[in-house]
Amino acid sequence: MRKQKKLRALALAATTLSVIGGATSATAQEGPLMVRIAELQIDPAQLVAYKAILKEQQEAAVRLEPGVLMLHSVAITSAPTRIRLLEVYASRSAYESHLRTPHFVKYKTTTESMVKALELIETTPILLCAKSNGTLGEPILCR
Amino acid sequence: MRKQKKLRALALAATTLSVIGGATSATAQEGPLMVRIAELQIDPAQLVAYKAILKEQQEAAVRLEPGVLMLHSVAITSAPTRIRLLEVYASRSAYESHLRTPHFVKYKTTTESMVKALELIETTPILLCAKSNGTLGEPILCR
Repeated sequence: MRKQKKLRALALAATTLSVIGGATSATAQEGPLMVRIAELQIDPAQLVAYKAILKEQQEAAVRLEPGVLMLHSVAITSAPTRIRLLEVYASRSAYESHLRTPHFVKYKTTTESMVKALELIETTPILLCAKSNGTLGEPILCR
Repeated sequence: MRKQKKLRALALAATTLSVIGGATSATAQEGPLMVRIAELQIDPAQLVAYKAILKEQQEAAVRLEPGVLMLHSVAITSAPTRIRLLEVYASRSAYESHLRTPHFVKYKTTTESMVKALELIETTPILLCAKSNGTLGEPILCR
């Protein structure tokens, strides 16, 4: 039992270090980052409910899945039912695992009638750069 | 001289803590986050040069400016001269200061002939969520 815990802790540390390492992939053996933009159009009558479900899903995915590095959602100010996401996964396989998680399946099922249109745009990252508050003392994290 | 250094360190610590705090503004007295999408079309002949200058500007802004929280750039895979940025500033005044920095002025001047079209889209953040590697031990940072 103890050994299992230790192994889990080591695996987590390895993931964290590889993310901090700033390479173009967080898990080098699985290939490059997968970065995508999603453009959604939401039913105006269900917008408040949709945003609550979206936020819950984003938070769960980034917290629970080592391969979900960022999920940023915004509404276009002049057209608030048009929502965009920037999604950053450690690899394509991390994304495929994400699709099978209970939180994503719940999100997809409960929002089905709310999403009027969805466009997924594959992108190639140029540079992803944010304040990191990093444990290694870096002021920023770019990859 | 020592006192100045100490004051600077305190100011930096205060900024960091307020960012970690996870409120919708990193500097509460200045108002909410300013989050924007930029959509650019780049001259194909100058794409490599443009991306190098863009990356340099992103890295400098996030590293040097306390109010520039994230700058993420991607190219659309099926149309690589179409570039999009997600820009997150601590406040509108942080954005206005950013426009006056030497690195931004240099970027704007040197890329003027490279940028064929530019659309700026004001957005309202729903949730910005990323692995944080936070100094307070949080596994993630959402705001």
